[in-house]
Amino acid sequence: MNNFEFQNPTKIIFGKGEIAKIAHEIPSDKNVLIIYGGGSIKKNGVYDQIMAALKEHHVAEFSGIEPNPNDTTCFKAVRQIHDQDIDFLLAIGGGSVIDATKFIAAAAAAGDADPRSLLGTIEVASRALPFGVVLTLPATGSEMNPAAIITNTSTHEKTVFKSQHVFPQFSVLDPTVTFTLPPRQVANGVVDAFTHVMEQYLTYSVNHKLQERFAESILLTLVEEGPKTLANPTDYDARANMMWCCTMALNGLIRYGVPNDWATHMIGHTLTALHGLDHAQTLAIILPTIMEYKRDKKRDRILQYAERIWNITEGSQEERIDAAISKTREFFESLGVKTHLRDYDINEDDIPKLIGQLRDQNLTALGEHKDITLEDSQAILEESL
Amino acid sequence: MNNFEFQNPTKIIFGKGEIAKIAHEIPSDKNVLIIYGGGSIKKNGVYDQIMAALKEHHVAEFSGIEPNPNDTTCFKAVRQIHDQDIDFLLAIGGGSVIDATKFIAAAAAAGDADPRSLLGTIEVASRALPFGVVLTLPATGSEMNPAAIITNTSTHEKTVFKSQHVFPQFSVLDPTVTFTLPPRQVANGVVDAFTHVMEQYLTYSVNHKLQERFAESILLTLVEEGPKTLANPTDYDARANMMWCCTMALNGLIRYGVPNDWATHMIGHTLTALHGLDHAQTLAIILPTIMEYKRDKKRDRILQYAERIWNITEGSQEERIDAAISKTREFFESLGVKTHLRDYDINEDDIPKLIGQLRDQNLTALGEHKDITLEDSQAILEESL
Repeated sequence: MNNFEFQNPTKIIFGKGEIAKIAHEIPSDKNVLIIYGGGSIKKNGVYDQIMAALKEHHVAEFSGIEPNPNDTTCFKAVRQIHDQDIDFLLAIGGGSVIDATKFIAAAAAAGDADPRSLLGTIEVASRALPFGVVLTLPATGSEMNPAAIITNTSTHEKTVFKSQHVFPQFSVLDPTVTFTLPPRQVANGVVDAFTHVMEQYLTYSVNHKLQERFAESILLTLVEEGPKTLANPTDYDARANMMWCCTMALNGLIRYGVPNDWATHMIGHTLTALHGLDHAQTLAIILPTIMEYKRDKKRDRILQYAERIWNITEGSQEERIDAAISKTREFFESLGVKTHLRDYDINEDDIPKLIGQLRDQNLTALGEHKDITLEDSQAILEESL
Repeated sequence: MNNFEFQNPTKIIFGKGEIAKIAHEIPSDKNVLIIYGGGSIKKNGVYDQIMAALKEHHVAEFSGIEPNPNDTTCFKAVRQIHDQDIDFLLAIGGGSVIDATKFIAAAAAAGDADPRSLLGTIEVASRALPFGVVLTLPATGSEMNPAAIITNTSTHEKTVFKSQHVFPQFSVLDPTVTFTLPPRQVANGVVDAFTHVMEQYLTYSVNHKLQERFAESILLTLVEEGPKTLANPTDYDARANMMWCCTMALNGLIRYGVPNDWATHMIGHTLTALHGLDHAQTLAIILPTIMEYKRDKKRDRILQYAERIWNITEGSQEERIDAAISKTREFFESLGVKTHLRDYDINEDDIPKLIGQLRDQNLTALGEHKDITLEDSQAILEESL
């Protein structure tokens, strides 16, 4: 096992009816800004629950965070924070709203620094406003980690923002608020969490037995509960299990001490940036292709995955690997998430621009071995058609 | 799944050579008291590593924490803390030293309150001195939780002390410092962690799929790595996996949202208090008997445990349950931990006193259903002979 440091101070408040507890989690003297996306929280009762809980607090609002949030929207929130002396943020939404809130929290506390300079893979934020989360869309795990993806509008790049200062202080996870989500968003959440696990699991062994089994636990539960929660959106336990899987998939538990891949995410981000695909759609396209393309270097892990997740024990190694890749693709497709570029009207002519963006972002050495070059990414995209 | 709150702010620093990092974790202006047990840390190099790391700090020492630490020893440390204006504690040891340090940290900050009044199952400490941990004996999980077991010398009872204020600020887990541990302590650690998981796993289902699989992950890894690490104490990866299992077994991950048992621990504590058995020895005796005694109410869980941990899929339900109990007992015995009271020279005549102590502590309704009465505990002890 590799050496590692692990710390995750976020308080999780999990279960039906728990949103009311935010009243006690946010100090009563705070000037609160609630941050959300479109109007869905006004239709599903979440907005009303929050306003009832915060009736003793001073509350302002900022809405209009878009999917794959961009920095200019965040800067508008920062101006409102400064204008209104806001000192606590509450994100209400899924990964996009939480990610935006993290960046807003750091940018608002950055003083005279150019907030756009905070975007990048290196820890640069030295402080942030405190914030909490009410999660409405289980998927990204952002509710219990210190990372965000923000689109830099000056370069059109999806950029990582990370800081130890942007762990949510608390996150409320009430599975009942997800009952009214559109099936597409639920399916995307399952694919997103599944792929988060795979990026930390399907690499190579450093004798990290426990992290491997934790990863397999999440995959098995997603395979079991994902279809159930789509078939019956108000099955509380199925949705609770799925929600907890999404959080655990990206809160550090299975990440530390082990090799990490993330090539699927990096190539996938370009598909969202240039073609507007849902994040999970990009993962469903690229992950099976990378499994195929890297079948030799990932051989041992794919064979273990085949056996432990899909119970594939018969046949030659090549046959078992083929079967595991097919099972993965079929799982995504069974949820209604298509797994080929052509399903989204992206064809061979679009690949040069996608490669150009990877080049512009210096994403020229991807994967757990840093051996996926631009040529490899091009081949992966071609094989994803 | 039941509603729950989960928060664990302890920073884990894991891996070989990491003890030196304590220099940066403890502010340089702190007046540090290092707390340890006997002299083993002076023989295995840990003491020297710590003193080298803290050469710029002001450091005092308190040694002599006994196994199953008692409150009067802790009160001596509290006096030293007050006399020497100590404001940071560093526990160096296993569960006993860490547990003692937690109680010391709270008692030293308790002001005029009678520190013995802090002992009890209810959160009463309102503050505590900050402290860190250098773990030398993987077993209890105390390095990443806010609980301690302290013997109240006025009543001879092992008493739970819990407070959100006594999470360690950091815990250093360097598997290499465990290479020189006596085999008995390592075996005890495996049994202790295994039983911690079983107390949170072998209850009844509330559709907590992920927590179940996480629990099974720890059990499987202990079954796989436990014998390995005893056979070859310097196998770094085996010991690293075992160490991480012990921490994860009792840090909240598999506890929240699920029913908890803890009857084995409660009955076991009396065996330690009155007969001086190692904590893990008491668990190895009582757990298999409770599985047998509660085979009906725990039926579904034992059958799942039989299949997922021991691959027992053949035979009637009763046969599979019998086989699972046998496998559990054999596993403990294979590690060198005996599983019957007679192995420790405890016989039928000793049982009334043990029951008397359970009565004195009001431990008259144990287990996940609170249905293990004193009569049941007596039967369990008789069946453990």
